[in-house]
Amino acid sequence: MASDCALCRGDGGALVWRGERLRVIHAHEPHFPAFYRVVWNAHAAEFTDLAPHERAHCMQAVALVEQVLREQLTPAKINLAALGNVVPHLHWHVIARFDWDSHFPAPVWDAPRRAQDTARIAALAARQPLVHDDLCARLGAWAGAPSLR
Amino acid sequence: MASDCALCRGDGGALVWRGERLRVIHAHEPHFPAFYRVVWNAHAAEFTDLAPHERAHCMQAVALVEQVLREQLTPAKINLAALGNVVPHLHWHVIARFDWDSHFPAPVWDAPRRAQDTARIAALAARQPLVHDDLCARLGAWAGAPSLR
Repeated sequence: MASDCALCRGDGGALVWRGERLRVIHAHEPHFPAFYRVVWNAHAAEFTDLAPHERAHCMQAVALVEQVLREQLTPAKINLAALGNVVPHLHWHVIARFDWDSHFPAPVWDAPRRAQDTARIAALAARQPLVHDDLCARLGAWAGAPSLR
Repeated sequence: MASDCALCRGDGGALVWRGERLRVIHAHEPHFPAFYRVVWNAHAAEFTDLAPHERAHCMQAVALVEQVLREQLTPAKINLAALGNVVPHLHWHVIARFDWDSHFPAPVWDAPRRAQDTARIAALAARQPLVHDDLCARLGAWAGAPSLR
């Protein structure tokens, strides 16, 4: 644990599920209501700071989150990214993208392409409870244990 | 193979190494001379369109490229991303980032933070042959076969 690291000090968002080695949070990104992060619990900066079996475990969780978002929300595309330039504690962004979202097809970090569609954003946000229930159920079954939170 | 897909029709950049299931290319991003992509050879849009053993294989290659970039270039951070909003054919960006680069600590898709440091960019670009040799050697050893190109 690094005392000056935001992802060691806190969850980093609304906690959806916590396992022994990683957690899944819902990011506070109001323009993108289907923006999740898989955060490695221990402090590690780079993907290759993890042992091979830990990397495999991590990517199984990322794939599981992607699969739930695809099944629940039918997005135009899933975006996956581990950047960590500002907070160098391994976290995978898992973002469901839609052709109507403010930035599509640009990355969410690029400049917006169009105005926000507040009605569609609200409709997507309203589906969060279903997504979170499915994430908890599937992650729990995968880990062989319910959430630790 | 999808006839209208740029990553089915061509390599998508300067080919560094090709294996049976994936290839590694050096991206033509002049401001970021340590920008690579791991491209799945078969047409698949999403990470979870791959079978679990294929995802594991893919991420082993991504990790190997990351490891070579870290060892050869000692970057401030590695950035990994699979976006594919424009070209929905699975490709992983593997980018070595430096605290002096034009966008750091922002993502490369964000607005630049400072002018390009042409001398440092040139010095980094000059190391490409060493990086490519190491990538070919390590990927070949990992795959148990030399490059198919």
